[in-house]
Amino acid sequence: MQTVSVSLAANPYEIVISSGIFPQFGEYFKKWVPGARQAVVVTDTNVEPLYGMKIAEILADAGIANDLCVVEAGEESKCPEVAQMLWERLIECGADRKTVVVAVGGGVVGDLAGFVAATLNRGIPFIQVPTTLLAQVDSSVGGKTGINIPQGKNLVGAFWQPKGVLMDMTSLQTLDDRQYRAGLAEVVKYGVILDADFFAFLEQNISAVNARQEDVLARIIARSCELKAQIVIEDERETSGRRAILNYGHTFGHAVEKLCGFGTYLHGEAVGIGMSFAAKLAMKLEPEKKELQELSERQDALLEALHIPTQVPDLPRDAVLSAMLHDKKTENGTIRFVLPNRLGECVMKTVEGVESFI
Amino acid sequence: MQTVSVSLAANPYEIVISSGIFPQFGEYFKKWVPGARQAVVVTDTNVEPLYGMKIAEILADAGIANDLCVVEAGEESKCPEVAQMLWERLIECGADRKTVVVAVGGGVVGDLAGFVAATLNRGIPFIQVPTTLLAQVDSSVGGKTGINIPQGKNLVGAFWQPKGVLMDMTSLQTLDDRQYRAGLAEVVKYGVILDADFFAFLEQNISAVNARQEDVLARIIARSCELKAQIVIEDERETSGRRAILNYGHTFGHAVEKLCGFGTYLHGEAVGIGMSFAAKLAMKLEPEKKELQELSERQDALLEALHIPTQVPDLPRDAVLSAMLHDKKTENGTIRFVLPNRLGECVMKTVEGVESFI
Repeated sequence: MQTVSVSLAANPYEIVISSGIFPQFGEYFKKWVPGARQAVVVTDTNVEPLYGMKIAEILADAGIANDLCVVEAGEESKCPEVAQMLWERLIECGADRKTVVVAVGGGVVGDLAGFVAATLNRGIPFIQVPTTLLAQVDSSVGGKTGINIPQGKNLVGAFWQPKGVLMDMTSLQTLDDRQYRAGLAEVVKYGVILDADFFAFLEQNISAVNARQEDVLARIIARSCELKAQIVIEDERETSGRRAILNYGHTFGHAVEKLCGFGTYLHGEAVGIGMSFAAKLAMKLEPEKKELQELSERQDALLEALHIPTQVPDLPRDAVLSAMLHDKKTENGTIRFVLPNRLGECVMKTVEGVESFI
Repeated sequence: MQTVSVSLAANPYEIVISSGIFPQFGEYFKKWVPGARQAVVVTDTNVEPLYGMKIAEILADAGIANDLCVVEAGEESKCPEVAQMLWERLIECGADRKTVVVAVGGGVVGDLAGFVAATLNRGIPFIQVPTTLLAQVDSSVGGKTGINIPQGKNLVGAFWQPKGVLMDMTSLQTLDDRQYRAGLAEVVKYGVILDADFFAFLEQNISAVNARQEDVLARIIARSCELKAQIVIEDERETSGRRAILNYGHTFGHAVEKLCGFGTYLHGEAVGIGMSFAAKLAMKLEPEKKELQELSERQDALLEALHIPTQVPDLPRDAVLSAMLHDKKTENGTIRFVLPNRLGECVMKTVEGVESFI
């Protein structure tokens, strides 16, 4: 079992990573939210039969009364209407300020249930049980919750830290191939922006990663969580700018996701495309820096070996530019990109005339 | 000019109380959110012609680009659908993370705009310009924002502190009589729960208060903000229980508001009824304490002299009980009341068998 402690001053919490640990969820629940007697398990139609009902039963067996709220699987559920339905359902289930929201599923369920927990009664306790690789290496750490509105992804949300995160790696064995690979895109991201050794480890373990070997997965997930936690601790609410480096690949990626219609590309796939774009942009901005060319090539090679898309789809340049300008990471109307400096290191850069590089 | 500094560790801010100070709003805006270049002024159909447009013009004159978003006046606007409309409008106005939401109006506008500011881009800066007495003495301090859902008032929301609060007392001269008196209910509340001298000051100045004399109003508003700020500083997120005393009169008051249909009673009117109920409940629970009877009588006399309702409307007992159980202040299914102990002091009490007192 691997445990990563996220040492946020106001909200320290624990991430437990292990195989076959779901049956112990009741004990973790009681440890993480002492005194809680009621829970609402939020899951989606895909995850309910696999793990959602199971988690609800494990809680009931541990003496925690709970209700199960199931939303339609898919990004479309991450919207104001479904958030509203959950607010109302939770109140109808008798939720009060000590009721714990347990999110069982991928990033959509975690972001949506987290936003509902952040805002119901102005904030109630929240536990994450991420069952996809993307959710495990990304949304489980850092407390970002949110929903989409027609104008863009994650434009509405809150920072809301979970009381604890439980990851059972057996859940990755049932994950479909595209979802699994989309999660790997964020893993590669951590290597590129923060840890060249981790990037090299991934390069050396391509076949093990593609075969979902649990020992390799455990290392990857724990290291990804550690790297993300370091950044989040430094800048919980994205105010110093430090946390913004985690958006590597996301400015362009979000634009691609939005313009192709949410759902055409999985989030991680769009991030893969965004990372490939960002590395090439860095290279074009500083053509004299040969290491940027090497980095771009190694990154594309690793992404492709892991079957993560890197090719930019054919999109109107103006629409891409406008979508990036409306991304929430913009400030006062300029577009700032996270660009690699060398492997394991990146910088924030305001890029003027970005349209000529699209 | 009276200035109250709210010394919250993470978010200190200033409340400025003065007559004829609106023309200086541009300077305060720049002081409170240095570097901000864009604002969205949120107001309602009643306040727009009186102060909303004026504030927007003052900002424009100070070089702050801004848009005006007007919602229908009334509690009905404090709902998920209008929040969603505002999220979308703000993005369409080009709002990014440095855009400042300026709420100009009463509690509905402040709570709604504050919730939208708390959640757009996971939180953007927010300034309050409360124009009703209730908003000035209550919602302007403490950072509670929120919306209603069909199941109850303020069940959805966030803690989100403003960057600053500007109150121009001339705005109270245009306030309709019922709104003005509803605000006074919260003023009386501060006296009962925290400051017997302040309560006595109100008793001694009934005719000045009823005549809206500005010197008396200034003292009342500043003292109310100070008293509330003291409590909020001790317990910003209502975790220690200390802040909960501000809910004096609210548990029963919210139930009355909800069961009569939001809008039948103004919030402050319902709080008046709730305070009268709470004082009588305290008296019945401890019939041997003569000071509780005196307190209940003095409180009712002051409320009535200020033309604030105290009579409980005829409502089914079970419905009142159920509404109180679903109020967000309940925990694990019990109802805790804020009850006066003596004038200027109160306690939290779990009341069993409350139905026999309704």
